[in-house]
Amino acid sequence: MFKEKMDLRLPGPVQVPKEIQIAMQRSFDHPMMDYRNPAFQEVLQETVEKSKMIFQTKNLVVPLTASGASALETAIINTVGPDDTIILCIVGYFGEYLQGIAKHIGCKVVRVEAEWGDIVDPEEVRKSLKENPEAKAVFATHCETSTSALNNIKDIAAVVGETDALFLVDAVSSIVGAPLYMDEWGIDIVATGGQKALMLPPGLALITMSDKAWDVIDGHQCPSFYFDLKLYKKGLESGVGTPYTPNIALVCGLLEACNMIERSGGLESEYKRHAALRDMTRAGVRALGLELLVEDQAASPTLTAVKLENADGFRKMLREEFHIALGGGLGKLKNKILRLGHMGYTDAADMLKMFAAMELALKKSGYQVELGAGVSAAQRHWLEHPHC
Amino acid sequence: MFKEKMDLRLPGPVQVPKEIQIAMQRSFDHPMMDYRNPAFQEVLQETVEKSKMIFQTKNLVVPLTASGASALETAIINTVGPDDTIILCIVGYFGEYLQGIAKHIGCKVVRVEAEWGDIVDPEEVRKSLKENPEAKAVFATHCETSTSALNNIKDIAAVVGETDALFLVDAVSSIVGAPLYMDEWGIDIVATGGQKALMLPPGLALITMSDKAWDVIDGHQCPSFYFDLKLYKKGLESGVGTPYTPNIALVCGLLEACNMIERSGGLESEYKRHAALRDMTRAGVRALGLELLVEDQAASPTLTAVKLENADGFRKMLREEFHIALGGGLGKLKNKILRLGHMGYTDAADMLKMFAAMELALKKSGYQVELGAGVSAAQRHWLEHPHC
Repeated sequence: MFKEKMDLRLPGPVQVPKEIQIAMQRSFDHPMMDYRNPAFQEVLQETVEKSKMIFQTKNLVVPLTASGASALETAIINTVGPDDTIILCIVGYFGEYLQGIAKHIGCKVVRVEAEWGDIVDPEEVRKSLKENPEAKAVFATHCETSTSALNNIKDIAAVVGETDALFLVDAVSSIVGAPLYMDEWGIDIVATGGQKALMLPPGLALITMSDKAWDVIDGHQCPSFYFDLKLYKKGLESGVGTPYTPNIALVCGLLEACNMIERSGGLESEYKRHAALRDMTRAGVRALGLELLVEDQAASPTLTAVKLENADGFRKMLREEFHIALGGGLGKLKNKILRLGHMGYTDAADMLKMFAAMELALKKSGYQVELGAGVSAAQRHWLEHPHC
Repeated sequence: MFKEKMDLRLPGPVQVPKEIQIAMQRSFDHPMMDYRNPAFQEVLQETVEKSKMIFQTKNLVVPLTASGASALETAIINTVGPDDTIILCIVGYFGEYLQGIAKHIGCKVVRVEAEWGDIVDPEEVRKSLKENPEAKAVFATHCETSTSALNNIKDIAAVVGETDALFLVDAVSSIVGAPLYMDEWGIDIVATGGQKALMLPPGLALITMSDKAWDVIDGHQCPSFYFDLKLYKKGLESGVGTPYTPNIALVCGLLEACNMIERSGGLESEYKRHAALRDMTRAGVRALGLELLVEDQAASPTLTAVKLENADGFRKMLREEFHIALGGGLGKLKNKILRLGHMGYTDAADMLKMFAAMELALKKSGYQVELGAGVSAAQRHWLEHPHC
């Protein structure tokens, strides 16, 4: 078979819908869009306005021409300085990542952690805030992409909200897929990227800040020039635009992504759709006799981690023989898990295809698996439960 | 779900691989390729040369900027005139189509037919040739796309080869997918289109002629200016190119399609791959308790027709709920069959996905179907039989 063919069941990047590709392409077709031109400024303002919906917020949303990781750094360096204390909720590889950023700028890091695959107990955050009253901020990963566990952001937000500390959330792999209500829950900063359930190619990060966060940011000396949020606020609110050349194509792509989400029923419908994909996936995995890494109540709607010996050999077989790419383990989970992505432009039939191919690959790898078992369990779940 | 999402399991057009899209796009990127420029003439000569492989021939292959249907007409009007007799092997909607063309120019048509779903008996062709010794040509559909039956072109060619009549073949939906050896079998004209197993968007037809055919063509007054093959031969053999502006993008796409087929193992491997997809599809259909329209020995490797009451309602459900488009019945089979395409850029996992979705849709339509039954039968077939 043609070796170029590939279905992405990765935890990002995901398949970019043709509509988004076209919207991006248009932006650099002749003539290339000029970013200081009023035509683009209108697109930018409309995009920034529409993307508030993604975060369920009324706050200004700032697009950064950079990858998702930059939004995490931007959240920290605009609010916390060297020698300040930051509490990090760490439940996997991307939690450790936050520590890497905080240590890099010389913060004092306090860890509230859980085993990889588990999530943080909000009461532990309360305890930590009491023990570290000087803490300027608490930063939690929403969906820990390395384990597929989803932290209880709502409850952590309530705990942090009782203090003066800011609550920062890494929503890179949860946004659009997992419910997140920035204003209602009282989150101060949400940082995310476009290449997950937002269905964009990589290169755009988004960050949005509460008034409480802006009070801190406005009085804080940001060590970075490029990621100084004060400059973005000034530019976007005055109608001048971003302070530096924006990724015009990705801004146009983001606008189309927002329009697509609206056309297909809105964000609440996206939450339900992703939850249904997660639940049918978990039903299929169980029917194959494989073990899920994360308990039901902490499972992310955007991806599902499955324990498997020699997972990377299995992924290779699935890629080469069935043209389906699955995610693998990171850090200490390397070669020990599969990460099945079901975010963005993915439907029930895509997941059934993945199970059908997984069954064949398991059989060929010597596993005792009944052909059709995973598919039919996932099908049954889909039939018997509501979905969008 | 996003309503733009769609998997094509149609009997053409089929999914156009990204590589072909890119090759086409390049041809009209700035600067637009100039078709009289030596650069394009080189591409054209290389494409014409490479596409001989598709027909297993050493004969000149002529690209026509027109749809596949035009190649059928071109075959007839370049060899047969008004009042000439032509024998047509008719086993479905596209066989009737040939009669439409022949009647249009005033030929005397002799029908050798079989029920829709069945194929022509080569002995009937022999009988017809004896009864109509004045017949100038015999024209047979290779894969009858309306029924998924594959005529026995090799044996019919042997029968016609014993006479002075030319043997013309409509290979639109068989080319690349079903074995066809023009020179070895002694076929005089093969006509085809690009939008089936060649994986191109519609708009390009290909036709190739034996020496025996050229002898007739050279002495025949073609009533069409645009489809006069003599002019194409002159242009292509002298290096001037096609007599009229060619579809440059599709010529570039055809070259990439040939290269893709070469890279993935060549034409014999494509034949095996398509046969394996057909066989797993038939196993899956049987396991669902549905009836195949065509017997095993006459089944095309490129598509499979399945009897189903209210097939068009079922197709609608599959499109809307699972984002998979199946073909429906034509003519007297309208609403009575599904046509499942497995040609071109399609793999085993794509077919399993289709079965998983079909099972759900059958269940929702009130059929007694065991979830996973079609998928697992197709999986088993795939595991237990060789494939490319």
